[in-house]
Formats: sequence, C-alpha cells, structure tokens
Amino acid sequence: MISKKLPHVFYGADYNPEQWPEEVWAEDVRLMREAGVNLVSVGIFAWAKLEPHPGEYDFAWLDRVLDLLHENGVLANLATATASPPPWMAKLYPDTLPVTREGVTLRPGSRQQYCPSSSVYRQRAAALVRRIAERYEDHPALAMWHVNNEYGCHVPECYCRTSAAAFREWLRSKYGTLAELNRAWGTAFWSQQYSDWEEVGPPLPTPTFPNPTQQLDWRRFSSDALLECFRMEAGILREITPEIPITTNFMGLFKPLDYWEWARHEDVVSHDCYPDPADPDAPAGAAMTYDLMRSLGGGNPWVLMEQTPSSVNWRPVNVPKRPGQMRLWSYAALARGADGIMFFQWRASKAGAEKFHGALVPHAGTDSRVWREVVQLGNELKRLDALPGSRGEAEAAILLDWESWWALELGSKPSCEVRLLEQLRSYYTPLWHKNILVDFAHPEGDLSRYRAVFVPNLYLLRETAARNLERFVSGGGTLVISFFSGIADGHDHIWLGGYPAPLRKLLGLRVEEFAPSTPDEEILLRTESGDTRAAHLWSDVIRLEGAEPVATFASGFSSGQPAITRHRFGRGTAYYLGTQPEEAYMASLLEGICQEAGVRPPLEAPAGVEVVRRTAGERSFLFALNHSEEPVELRLEDPARDLLTGERRDTLQLAPRGIAILEEG
Amino acid sequence: MISKKLPHVFYGADYNPEQWPEEVWAEDVRLMREAGVNLVSVGIFAWAKLEPHPGEYDFAWLDRVLDLLHENGVLANLATATASPPPWMAKLYPDTLPVTREGVTLRPGSRQQYCPSSSVYRQRAAALVRRIAERYEDHPALAMWHVNNEYGCHVPECYCRTSAAAFREWLRSKYGTLAELNRAWGTAFWSQQYSDWEEVGPPLPTPTFPNPTQQLDWRRFSSDALLECFRMEAGILREITPEIPITTNFMGLFKPLDYWEWARHEDVVSHDCYPDPADPDAPAGAAMTYDLMRSLGGGNPWVLMEQTPSSVNWRPVNVPKRPGQMRLWSYAALARGADGIMFFQWRASKAGAEKFHGALVPHAGTDSRVWREVVQLGNELKRLDALPGSRGEAEAAILLDWESWWALELGSKPSCEVRLLEQLRSYYTPLWHKNILVDFAHPEGDLSRYRAVFVPNLYLLRETAARNLERFVSGGGTLVISFFSGIADGHDHIWLGGYPAPLRKLLGLRVEEFAPSTPDEEILLRTESGDTRAAHLWSDVIRLEGAEPVATFASGFSSGQPAITRHRFGRGTAYYLGTQPEEAYMASLLEGICQEAGVRPPLEAPAGVEVVRRTAGERSFLFALNHSEEPVELRLEDPARDLLTGERRDTLQLAPRGIAILEEG
Amino acid sequence: MISKKLPHVFYGADYNPEQWPEEVWAEDVRLMREAGVNLVSVGIFAWAKLEPHPGEYDFAWLDRVLDLLHENGVLANLATATASPPPWMAKLYPDTLPVTREGVTLRPGSRQQYCPSSSVYRQRAAALVRRIAERYEDHPALAMWHVNNEYGCHVPECYCRTSAAAFREWLRSKYGTLAELNRAWGTAFWSQQYSDWEEVGPPLPTPTFPNPTQQLDWRRFSSDALLECFRMEAGILREITPEIPITTNFMGLFKPLDYWEWARHEDVVSHDCYPDPADPDAPAGAAMTYDLMRSLGGGNPWVLMEQTPSSVNWRPVNVPKRPGQMRLWSYAALARGADGIMFFQWRASKAGAEKFHGALVPHAGTDSRVWREVVQLGNELKRLDALPGSRGEAEAAILLDWESWWALELGSKPSCEVRLLEQLRSYYTPLWHKNILVDFAHPEGDLSRYRAVFVPNLYLLRETAARNLERFVSGGGTLVISFFSGIADGHDHIWLGGYPAPLRKLLGLRVEEFAPSTPDEEILLRTESGDTRAAHLWSDVIRLEGAEPVATFASGFSSGQPAITRHRFGRGTAYYLGTQPEEAYMASLLEGICQEAGVRPPLEAPAGVEVVRRTAGERSFLFALNHSEEPVELRLEDPARDLLTGERRDTLQLAPRGIAILEEG
Ligand SMILES: [Zn+2]
Ligand SMILES: [Zn+2]
Ligand SMILES: [Zn+2]
Repeated sequence: MISKKLPHVFYGADYNPEQWPEEVWAEDVRLMREAGVNLVSVGIFAWAKLEPHPGEYDFAWLDRVLDLLHENGVLANLATATASPPPWMAKLYPDTLPVTREGVTLRPGSRQQYCPSSSVYRQRAAALVRRIAERYEDHPALAMWHVNNEYGCHVPECYCRTSAAAFREWLRSKYGTLAELNRAWGTAFWSQQYSDWEEVGPPLPTPTFPNPTQQLDWRRFSSDALLECFRMEAGILREITPEIPITTNFMGLFKPLDYWEWARHEDVVSHDCYPDPADPDAPAGAAMTYDLMRSLGGGNPWVLMEQTPSSVNWRPVNVPKRPGQMRLWSYAALARGADGIMFFQWRASKAGAEKFHGALVPHAGTDSRVWREVVQLGNELKRLDALPGSRGEAEAAILLDWESWWALELGSKPSCEVRLLEQLRSYYTPLWHKNILVDFAHPEGDLSRYRAVFVPNLYLLRETAARNLERFVSGGGTLVISFFSGIADGHDHIWLGGYPAPLRKLLGLRVEEFAPSTPDEEILLRTESGDTRAAHLWSDVIRLEGAEPVATFASGFSSGQPAITRHRFGRGTAYYLGTQPEEAYMASLLEGICQEAGVRPPLEAPAGVEVVRRTAGERSFLFALNHSEEPVELRLEDPARDLLTGERRDTLQLAPRGIAILEEG
Repeated sequence: MISKKLPHVFYGADYNPEQWPEEVWAEDVRLMREAGVNLVSVGIFAWAKLEPHPGEYDFAWLDRVLDLLHENGVLANLATATASPPPWMAKLYPDTLPVTREGVTLRPGSRQQYCPSSSVYRQRAAALVRRIAERYEDHPALAMWHVNNEYGCHVPECYCRTSAAAFREWLRSKYGTLAELNRAWGTAFWSQQYSDWEEVGPPLPTPTFPNPTQQLDWRRFSSDALLECFRMEAGILREITPEIPITTNFMGLFKPLDYWEWARHEDVVSHDCYPDPADPDAPAGAAMTYDLMRSLGGGNPWVLMEQTPSSVNWRPVNVPKRPGQMRLWSYAALARGADGIMFFQWRASKAGAEKFHGALVPHAGTDSRVWREVVQLGNELKRLDALPGSRGEAEAAILLDWESWWALELGSKPSCEVRLLEQLRSYYTPLWHKNILVDFAHPEGDLSRYRAVFVPNLYLLRETAARNLERFVSGGGTLVISFFSGIADGHDHIWLGGYPAPLRKLLGLRVEEFAPSTPDEEILLRTESGDTRAAHLWSDVIRLEGAEPVATFASGFSSGQPAITRHRFGRGTAYYLGTQPEEAYMASLLEGICQEAGVRPPLEAPAGVEVVRRTAGERSFLFALNHSEEPVELRLEDPARDLLTGERRDTLQLAPRGIAILEEG
Repeated sequence: MISKKLPHVFYGADYNPEQWPEEVWAEDVRLMREAGVNLVSVGIFAWAKLEPHPGEYDFAWLDRVLDLLHENGVLANLATATASPPPWMAKLYPDTLPVTREGVTLRPGSRQQYCPSSSVYRQRAAALVRRIAERYEDHPALAMWHVNNEYGCHVPECYCRTSAAAFREWLRSKYGTLAELNRAWGTAFWSQQYSDWEEVGPPLPTPTFPNPTQQLDWRRFSSDALLECFRMEAGILREITPEIPITTNFMGLFKPLDYWEWARHEDVVSHDCYPDPADPDAPAGAAMTYDLMRSLGGGNPWVLMEQTPSSVNWRPVNVPKRPGQMRLWSYAALARGADGIMFFQWRASKAGAEKFHGALVPHAGTDSRVWREVVQLGNELKRLDALPGSRGEAEAAILLDWESWWALELGSKPSCEVRLLEQLRSYYTPLWHKNILVDFAHPEGDLSRYRAVFVPNLYLLRETAARNLERFVSGGGTLVISFFSGIADGHDHIWLGGYPAPLRKLLGLRVEEFAPSTPDEEILLRTESGDTRAAHLWSDVIRLEGAEPVATFASGFSSGQPAITRHRFGRGTAYYLGTQPEEAYMASLLEGICQEAGVRPPLEAPAGVEVVRRTAGERSFLFALNHSEEPVELRLEDPARDLLTGERRDTLQLAPRGIAILEEG
C-alpha cells in the first residue's frame, strides 16, 4: 500500500488553484467530492507564486488551499515547486539558464529553464523545498511528495560552462587518471589524446562524428546530474518528513534518464502517460510503459500520475479519446499494477500554452461528456478498495538497459535504422496481443523468477551481464536474443574474438559479418518446416558452433545461411535472431517459444481483449478489457465475482470499450 | 484618381539606372516611350549611391535621371531609398543589424539588414529622406513617393537588445503595470510571473512552448515597430510635399504586418504580386490579394506596384508566364480596382541576386516575345483613360483579422493543420469561380453594406466584434462562420461559458468538444436532403440551442450529431460550419447561400471566365477574362462597347487567355 | 611509374598501429606478408601521439613501426600527420578552431578541427612536418609522402575572423582597388557598394540571397586557403626529400576544392572512393571518378588510396560489398589507370567513431570471407607487374570546371533542379555503358587530342574557353553542349547579347527564354525521324541562326520549336541540347554522335560488361569486368594472353563479378 493515509485507489489530478480567483476554489472542492477525487497534486508550477521576489516567500494562499482540501476530504500530493524557476532567477543569475549544444541559451517564458548542474539553482531550490517541507510537515492533507516535475522533459542535458566543469569532475571521479580516460575513450583514434583535464568537455559541435565514448559518458553524466537534483530534494524531505512517500513523475520509455538508477531513490514510482488515440497501437504502447513502471518499482504498486481525460495540446493534431476510452485505458493501468489514476489537470486553463489540454473540468463545464465520465470512473473506483497492494506476477521478462540504448543509437553504426523503441515493440506487441504479462529487467538483474527472457538488440553488454544470461539459460530458462547484441563493452569498445564474443558459447555460433538492409528491402526466410517468411532490417552472416538453424535466409546477402538459431545450453535454450522477422512471423515465433517455455496467458480471450491478473496473497483479480469496437463474450475457467457489480459470473459480456474486474476463487 | 499629374492607367516598372552606365539611360527612355511607360519607381536601392560615405551625399546622378525622365514624359514614383542601408552602416554601427531568434546577426551583402527599432537606423534614414524630399520637392517628374520597400519582407522581427528594450516600452505603454501584464499574459501558468519589468522580453528560445500572449504581443509590437519607421518617413514627406501621394508596396496576405493598421497611414495602397504560373489556382489566389488591396484602401483605386512580365528568380523552379498570361493577369488586376500596372523591373540586371528575374527589357533584348507583349499592353492601356477612379462594389465580404491570424497559428492548438490562408481560400476560391465579388472586412468594421459575410476560423474575437456580427445578422444579413471561431479574447484567453461563448446566442448552439482529424482522414456528412458529402480537418461536438442542422456527421468522432447548422436571428440567418466541407460541397453550400442572400455575379459565364464590374457614378465597365486554354463565347445581357476596339457587342468571343473590357449601357 | 622503389601495383592500407599494443604489430606484419601488402599509409592521425604536449615530440614508436615494416618488406606512404591537431591546440589557441557560417565553433573530439587560414595552425603543422621529414628522410621504408588527409572533407570553409581577414587580403590582391571589387561584385544592385575594405567579408548570414559574386569568390578563396596549407607542407618535403613523390588523397567529384588547381601541385594523384553497394549505378559513378583522377594527373597513373574491403560506417545504412565485389571494383580502378589499390584500413578499430568501418583484418579476424578475398587479390596483383605506367587513351572528353559548378549552384537561378553532378552523370553513364572511355578536361585545356567533347551545363564560361571550343569544332571536332551553358562570365555577370552570347556563332542559334520544368513534369520531343521521345527539367526557347533542329518540342512552353540542334561549324559539328533528354534518348543520341565522330569502344561487349584498354608504348592490356549477376561470354577480335592465368584466349568466359586482363597482340 502506497500510503497509510489513503487505503484506496488514488483518484485525482494536478490542481493549479493559483491560476484562478479564490471564488472558483469552493466550486473546485465541491466538484472533487462529486467525482470521488481523493488526491490532488498541488503546487507543481507555483515557485513564482510562493517566492514572488528572491527570498520573499508567500505561503498564505497555499495554506488556504491545503486547509480547504483537507476540509473536503481530499489529500495532497504536494509538489516541491522546483520544476520551473521564476523569471527573476534568470535575471539575477543568468548562469542558471541552460544552453543547447549549438550554444543557444534557453530563456524564461515557458518552463524548466534551469541548468541541472547550477549550484545557484540547486541552492535556491533546496531553500524552497526546506521551507515547504517545514511549513507543511504536519499538515493533515499531506499524503505524498511530488518532487519537481518530469525531470529532463525539455532540457535533458545542458552544455553550459558550469555543466562542462561538472562533467569534468564526474569523469575525474570515474576514471581517476587522464591516461585511463584516454584508454576508455579510445583517443588514439583520430589524434584525440588529451594532455590536460582542462581540454576535456561535453560533446560540443565537431567537424564530424564525435567520440562515441565521450557521448556515452555525457549521457550517463546528464542522467546523473538531474538525479543529483532529485536526490538533493528527496534528502531534505526525508529528513523532515520521514514517513511521507516521495515520488517524481516518470515519462515511460524516456531515453535521457536511466530510470533503473532513478527508481532506486524514490519510494513510489509514478508515471505520466499520453498515448495517442489516433494510433491503433496505443494500448500496447501504453501497456509497455505500465509494465516498465511496475518493474522499476520492483513489482510494487505505482501511480498513473498524469493522463488526459480527453485530448492533449502538444501534438500537431490532437485527437481526443473517444467515449469510454478514458475509462478503458484507466483500468488498463490498474490491471498492470497502478494503485492510482490521476490526470493532468483538474480544471482547464483559461490562458497559457496548455489551455487546450484536456481537463476533468473542461472549458465546456460539467454539462459535458467528459465530466460525466470522470464522475462515473471516480465512483466506480471506490468499489475497488481490495485492489491496492496487489501485484502482477510475470513469467517472462524483456531486458532493457539505458546504457545500451544510448550506445546503440549513437550513430556511425552498421545501420541507423535499428532503433531500440521499435525493437522493443517488435517483442512487446505480439506478447501483449497474446496476453503474456512481461516484466522489464536489467541485464544484470535477478532473472531466476522467469521462464523466458527476451533481449532486443542489447548492443552494449558487460561481462557480468553475459554471465547472468548464461546462468539463466543453464538453469533451465529460455532466452531469445536479437542480432547486434553483445557487440560492445561498457566503454563502447568492440568485444574482440568474433561477434558476439561474450555470448558465443551461450548461443553456439559466431557472427562473421553484418549486412543491414535498406528500409524498403524485404528479406525472405525459409523455416524448418519449409515455409517462406519475411524479414527486414538486417542479415547476420552466422557460422554455427553448436546451434541449429530454425530458419535460413532465402534471399539477400546471407542467402542459404542460418537466420534464426536454437542452442541447447545447460538445462535451457537460447534462440538467436540474426534478422528482424516481420510482425506475423515474430508473433508466431514468440508464441511457440512461450508455449515451449511454459509461459501462458491467464485466460484464452478473443482478439482485442486484454486480460491481466493481479494477485495479493491468496486473492487474485482478473481484468478483462475490450479494446475492440465490437461486443465480445469470454468464458471463464471458474466462476468469479465482478467487483463493480458484485455479481458472480462464468461468462463475461463486454461491450465495445467495456471492462470487468473479477475476483477469482 | 490617384494623381492629378497622371490621369491615366499607370504603366511602368522599377527603374534602377544606377546599375548601368549612362549611355544605356538614353536607350531606356527611348524604349519607355515605345512601350507607353508613364511612371517608374526610382531609387529604391540607391542609398549607397546617394550617400556613398556617411554623411556625404551625391545627388548629381539622380538629378540627371529625373531630368531625363521628365524630358521624355515619364513621371517618377520616387523612392526614399531606405530599404537597404549601405555596408558602412553595419561597420560604423553594428547595433543597427537585425538579430534572429536564435541569436544570429544578419549582415550586409543582400538587403534589408536593419533593426526597425534602431534609433541610429531611424535617424540616418530620416536624414536621407529629408534630403531627397527637399531636393526634389519641386521636380516636375515627381508624382508619387515610394517609401522604403516591402517592409518586413525578410526581417519581419528583430530579437536584438534594442528591440527587446523597445518591446518593454511598448508593453509598459500598453499595460501600465506589471500586474496587468501578468494578468494579460496568464503568467500564473508555469510559474511565469514577472517581478520586475527588466525580466520581460521577446519570445527568445525556451525549453518548450513559449507563453502565447507574449508571442501575440510580440507580433503586434513587431508590426508596430516597422509601422513607426514608415510613419516617420511619411511624416517628413507630408511636411515637405503635402500634395504628393505616399505609398509603400504591400505584399498581399503577408502575415507579419497588420495591413488594416498600416493602410490607414498611406495615401494609396500598392501591391507586389507574384503568382506562380505553375500553380493552376494562381488566378484565384492573386484575385484574393487584389480584393484585399481594394478593401484596405476603403474601395479606392490601388496600384499593382510589382509583378513580373515573365518569371521570377527566387522559387526553386521559376516557370515563366506563358504568352498572353502577363496581359491577362494585368487586366485581372485592373478588373479588381487597380489603376496602375507596374513591374519589377525595367531592365534585367547583369549581375547580382536577381539577374534572372524577368524584366520589361530582358537579357534577350527587344527582339523578344516579352518585349513585344510589354509594348502591346502599354499601348492598349492608353485607351483606358475612362477607368481610373472607378470602383468595384461588392455585396459580400470575408472577415480577416491579422491578430486572430497570429493567435490561431501560435501552436499548441487542437490542430496545427488549421492554417488561415487555406481556410480563406476555401471560401474565396469557390466564390471567385462563381464571379461573386467580395471585399475583405475587419470584424469590427462597418458591415451594413453587405448582404452576406463569410468568416473563416476567426479564433480571436473581441466582444465588440461579436456584437458587430449580431448587429449585421439581426439587421437582415447572412453570416457563414467556421469552426474554432470566437474561442479566445484579445489576450488569447478562452472565452468561458461554452464555446464559442460570445457567439452562442447568434449561432444558436454550443460546442462541447473539438475533434480534429489527422490529415488523411475523411469525414462523411449527410445533408438535409439525404446526400452524403465529404469533409475533413475537424469535427465539432455541437449542442443545438435553437439552430437547426443543415448537415449531420455520418462518421468520425461526432457521428450522428450536427455538423453544419442554420439559425434565424433577427431578420437574418447565421450558418455555422462545424467541420471543413470538401471543395465541391463548400462550393455548392456557398452558391446556395449566396442565392438565398441575393448575392449575384454580374453575368453568367462559362467555367474559367472571370467577370468583374467596376463602376464610376453612372458609368460601368465589365471585364471579361478567359483563364481557360479554350476559346469561349459570352452572351451579354445588353449590348456594350468594347473599350479596346471601340465596337459595340452583344456577344463576346474570347480567345484562350483573351480579354475584353466593355462599357455597359 | 610512380615510385622507383616499388615497381609493382601498390597494395596496402591505412595502418594505425598507434591504436594497438605493440604485441599486435608483429601479427600485423606477418599478415601483411601473407596478403601481399607492399605499401601502407602510416601516421595520418598521429599528431597527438607524435607531439603529446606542445613542443614535446615522441618519435620512438614510429621509428619502431617503420623499422618493422622495412624488415618485412613493406614500404611506407608516410603521413605528415597534420590532418587532426591534438586537443591541446584548441585549449592553447582557441582561435585555431573553425567556425561555421552560423557562428558555431567546431571543437576537438572528432577530427579536422582547424582553421585553414590560422597562422598558428600553419606554423605548428610546418614544425611537425619538418621534424618528420628530417627524421625519416633516409629511412629505407619511406616511399611516398601522404600530406594531411582528405583536405576539406568536413571543414571546407571557415567563417572565423582570421579567415575573414585572409579573405580580404585575397580579394585585395585579386582586385587591387575597392572600385574594381564593387564593379566585379555588382554592388550597385541592392545598395551593396563598399566604401572601405574593412566592410568586406565572407558571405555570413544575410536577410535574403547574398551577393553571388561574393559567394563565388568565397568558394575560390576557400579552395585556395586549403591549397596554401598543402603547398606549405609539400614545400618543406620537397626541400628535404626531393626524390620522394608527394600526394594528398582526393575525394572524387568533391565540390569544395578545385582539383584542377590542386593537382598541378602534387606528384601523384590519389583518390578515396566509397561507392555505395546498395546503389545499382555505383560502378558507373566510381568509374567517373577514376577517369577524373587519371585526367587530373594528365593521364599519368594514380593511386586508389582508400576504399573499403566490405562496408563503411558513415551512411545511414551501410550495405557491405558482396562476395567478389571488392575484387571486381579494384580491377575497375586498375582498368582506368590506377597503379595502386589501397584500403581504409588495415585492422578494424576496437573503439572510436570508425570501429564499424570495414578493414582488411576485420573484427571477425582472418577466418573470414573478407580476409580470404584480401589475400586472393593481393597475390593476384603480383602477376601484374607489366601494368604500372601504362595509360588509358580516350578519344572523347567531358568538360568540367569547378568555378562553373560553384556558380551554377549558387541559388536564385531559373531552376535549382539543375545540379551539376546529375548532369555529368546524364552524359557519363550512357557512355560508360557503351564502354566509351572519356577524359575530363578543363574548358581552357587542350582539346585537340579528342574527337568528341561533351559539355554538361557549363554556366560560367570565360571568353578564352569559348574560343577554345570554337577552335576545337572548327578543327573538325564534335561538340555536344547542354542548355544553360555560356550564360555568365568569370564574375558571374550575364554575357549580354542574347544567350549564350559567347557561343552563338559556334552553335548557330540564340536562346530567347528559359522555361524550367517542375520536377514531375514530362516534356515530349519529336525527333527528325518523327519519333516521340521524353525530356524533363528545362525547355529553352531557341531561335535558329544557322543550326538545324534534331528534335523539336512537342509539348510544354516551347512546343513546336527546336529542342535539340546541330550546327556545322568549320570542319566540325556542334550539337546543342535545349532540354534534358530522358536516359534512353540521351543514350541513343550520344551513341549516334559517337559513331558519327568515330569514337568507338575497344570491344563489343554484352550488357553489364565493362571493357577498358590501357596501353604502354607497343603493349596494350584489355580489362574485361563482368558487373552483372550472370556469366557472360565475350569474343575477342584477336587472341590475347590472360595475365592472371597466362593462357591465350580468343573467347572469354566471365563468371558473375568475374574479371580478366588480357595482353593484346
Ligand atoms: Zn549547464
Ligand atoms: Zn533589433
Ligand atoms: Zn577561420
């Protein structure tokens, strides 16, 4: 359970009363009660209101807001308000402003205009956080801390001189000596040896491809620099309110921040999720981030901190969610381990850059479809008090490593068409369609709980991770790993000894050459059973050293040679994909491998129906979510109780976009 | 009549004798006489020649040019020569150079490299203008003043520190107090409150979407900053030569400058127009700008100041006008109220960035198709002395407001696909094909003279404009207004109370939600008569409050709900388009509405034939222009006299690209 | 013969031992012997290793490398190591860093970060070159000097203040007076006259199109600035080792450097060539650069200095060469006059931006297809000692002038779709398919040795070149010249007097207008024989003045008028193409013209088979290269001896990608 103060599914939104006259606040809390809102995030962009002039604080208005919320039974996810400094900061301390790679200084007038490495910014933020924490440590409305906001969203890295100096310190502490840095960065290449620490800096514009290891370390440093900001704030909060859980809102598969590292430092994982209703694959894409959030928190419940009830405002075309879609997608988050459903934002703004972003109280007011759906969902969630604290137990995992992601996409690779997100999706989407629940795991994490592990293009692989994979397979696990994995070490140096050197024993093969394909080129494969299937993107030239072919290339550079292989290793099996099978083939491959490995969905369901189980000790809850536009019927294996209606059922009728939550047993 | 000195249709070009040795000038004036040229624009880019060193002026050559013109019966549209400062200005006063949003300083070597807010530039320009005016105030060739050139063409806004300070002054004078600016800009959003005027500035690069009201005010300021330059020059000229009309050349639907505001300060509207011969819709597009020019001048005659006789040089591919097309398009401008047909430029340059721009005297010389067409047209125009001063009288108008245009396209809207120019064209083009003459009008202008008013996507709407529209309809007018109108007030704050709050009474409806479409999505509509029609771009969710449906959505987000509505209001009717009908449906809708409103073309004409009337008291002139590639025949309602041939006709045969001008009655 | 020390076909690679521990070096030389390597390029990126701290040199390691090579019979193409300064240079002398047009300074971390005009860079480079030359002047391994590397590859121009001052000096020395510069640059246009030399500078960002002559002179200056660097290094080397040939590696049709000018200053032309195996036209494209290299060296043998044995790493998708393709393409270079086949690089890097670039020793090691092909080729080449010094004798030439290329593509032209490389290819590719060997020639070069000369779009044409062409045709030659040739003089001023004024007499016509086409527009032509053919890109309006039509336009702007003409002039014939014929028509036109002119291939060969002859006095060698994927058979006119097998043949069977070299007679 995330918070003892709130043993329910959280329901609420970002609440920005500072944008409205106080007479509106009374209506706000009345409507919150109507909608079943029990938690709101307050003060995220209130720094300028809380500290209107440098060192002059004004908490009176926030006192009134928190009192009013408390009086109306609404708790506060109180923000530290550091996400956007007031304009006076830029005027007084121009060096706090971030600078782009091309040397452009980013100014006030939108949000997040601070350099993460600026000691002035950090000191000013710390002072504010301490004041807020001290003022509200005992306030009865305080339920959770919301640190900053969407770290790195717009400014994931800063190239100013302060940041350059901080990067040098970070490197000095990582490498100790310049000789070691020269070795790690491979500066013998292209006459890049450094003779003095002061020569070292961020990957600023260069005549051509910059040093890859410099770039990789820069990404590591940039994630760390923001993490230091978070840890600084969290430290103050823990000191003053050790009981109050701390979170900061993540943004799914956000490349700049190594969320494995980040998640270790927060009490609750929370997530902002904005799938595009115009994208037919949005449900699978969102589910992937939900599974990631659950995994980042070690399987613990997480909070869907932001979603929109209707539409966003920042896409070129902002298609709204259709009737029922917000409800359906909210339950999809619950199904995968969320214990809170929250929104951006409570009341639609009248002015500013986000005034066309959807809100619980839209411009149209409460006589509106959106508001009616908000009220319906809030009141349904009250019936789900059994849910908080239950967990999803996956039998399979997908490996994800931010460092490898960064290294893979640095450029000057055999093909820039190999993009990690697409590769992840090529595994995740067919598993989602089959209702196979997966965790995400770090390559060096404990894999012993899984029957099957999937590894999309893990380019950078440390020795320990390679041994971890061997241990997993030899212990009986099934591994599926894609081409261009295990190629480079932690410094992005090639593992010599034949690709992929640290995995050759495990996979029973050697890759001699890479033959990437142009984007429109189709590759033909012949399977063991003689069928012809299609692939694209890449052809390895594979030399078997114990593995057996599952499919061979029937066209292209490697025609006639193995394309997909299987290798028995210890008590398990390692599959290798030396190309990218097209969707349908990937789906049937993975389905077969799952069956073989004993990984099964909780229920057989018609196409378009998502089925997920959460369990809590002996209790178990089955979510059935109809993403299709047609009514469907599901037959349950055993009768179960519908949590929303109270009825026991052995078949389920789901309307289009309909859902059910069943307690099994 | 624009000028008492020149009671004819103006005919001429930009004349740049400074590019040529004096022996060429004699040939120039001889050829001008041959072509019937009676007016040339002189000195537009002559600053460096007139003031070769700071403060050292040389007028001798210009004296000789003007004398020579006068001796040959050619008048001068004399330029103030301030459009492009000499390179010494940048060297001596680098702060006069403009700076882009990204901080790049723009240098000499092309043209227009000055900051409009630079007091040094303004002083130097003023000194030059005063010298020119004083020297030539009594010169007999002087017929008109050409102030600067194409204001804002390349540098519509400057982000230098001088401009930032000027913007702050402009804001201070607009808002008075910082509190008021904070309120207007909605700075409570995203922690943007200013605590000191010095913190306020232009919308420089920011991490994400900048404040919309700041951007909107920046556009207003930028238009005003250039207008101040124009007014400064015009003030000097009026002081010295109060009788000589003043103009500066506009550029049609040029977004950066609010021409409604500009036109108030000049004596004659003039226009540079470069339709692309490769674009089949070019004639309608050009006509739209002609109607705009006539409207900007309050219906008075205007001057087509620049067009090309053949091709331009600045498109990626510069297709030339076909034989006869220059003549046809010149008459199209006359038809819509021009009293002058002028060109860029007289003689094709031998060097420089525009040497491949068409000219009356092309590189090929006078033994050329282009020159022969120039001579033909110039001599025809001599027969049209009856025309100057006559006017086009429109029964319909399209509303156009630069402020709303700016606000609509600021970004972070429901859809960035809603672009004003396309929306304007979606109304204008079908009306042009039906030969319905339209004015353009400002939303707060006098609409009483019109039977029908069309309102494409007037996002920003002031209270007074809303009342103006109600007055128009209740008085018997017919209004057609598109979705996403009346959404925001003058500060770009949402009009609360249900979209479009200030128009709900007039339209008899409420819009609850916006559902924009992705670019390739087609929406089906069902009309009153049961037909299926197509639409795209947008679907409103409309709640009727008195209006009746004209068409309902048959697909998409709002399927089954009203798409297009009609509302009787007072003695008139208000139509509302909650989507964007495809071209053919838009055409038939507008045709039906025009008939209903009693708005009629001057003559029924075959497809491709443009028919327009100009009137002067009792006299009336009918222009018939065949834009098609086929010969056509028109039957006149009454016999009329052909101004070019002198014959009376009751039917007209027009060759492909042929024209006729008939005096009716 | 390039080098007396090495009377064989050169075979080798860039060798970068500094990237590897010394234990690897022993394996390197062993493998070099195995592969028949006789020459390696050493030290290209070794500055930081040779001068690790400013002024502190370390040659010990290079001594060991060169000794080791010598002991193993491998010669050194020793680099001057100036291509990439060490990071200390940037720290100590930030002004040595190059600056982009937008003002961004380029930093260390990749390569080539120096301003060519920096006197500090030049002094430091000179000091290094002198040390290297003095240390190794007598080393027995030294066979050739490799000056710098791929001059201009990433930084072809620098906009820093040092470069601006150098540009001013260059201009002052070219024009003498400011008045002359003003005249040449046409500054009377747009008020651009300079009043002081200090006002003049590079074409930095401007509001719109910068002055074309300024841009053209900037390109001339930028090529010259790098050439000065090369000449400075070559001067030192010639002083110390007058016997050792000097080269720097060119990059084919590299626009920024005027290689005609450059080639005059080196002893041997060398070439880096990276055709894309994914491009079916790659063989013709590569051949075009080979012919250019031979022509730059006045017909003397040249060296293929870099190619990849397999794939590169810098394209978005890097498709490897197929089995046999590296061998086939290497012989294609030999066929066109190369006396050396070298690669980048010897051993694939473990780290850095080029670690995925192919190498003779790939990551996969020597048990690999790539290594086996390397060994095969190296041992075959040993049988070709007869070849070095022989030459290709072309009967036709294509004119190429960098100045015209620059001027043509400056912008604000009738069409930006006319790009020189494509136009060159439109001539070269059909000639290549017909096995017509062509030289490239400068418009002012000696053309008397050719029967036919082809002139793609020679926009800028000096008077002397025009006379040269007249001389060529009147002497009996056949000229084929494309539209938009002879339009401007050396200052990019229009040649007045009717296009193309300096060629009108020769061509017997006048072009009155240009009518470029939009990219998707097809133009129809009717030929003399009444056939309909297609063309695109452009239509001239041609007035015949003695020429006769070969084809007329049957559609488009110039319908019914001449499109392609022929003019007998003196004893020869001049063809003019007033449009761009589509590929097949261009091929048949050129084939007919070649037959007429007596230009013939060495042998009739099936499609896809390249046949080229090299001759050395009485001896002559015929290369036959099968680029197709099918086996082919060729019948020889007379029996000849196969140099690889030693057999005499009168027919040839070539496998797919197979080759043969025959000594004729
Ligand atoms: Zn920074
Ligand atoms: Zn400015
Ligand atoms: Zn420089």
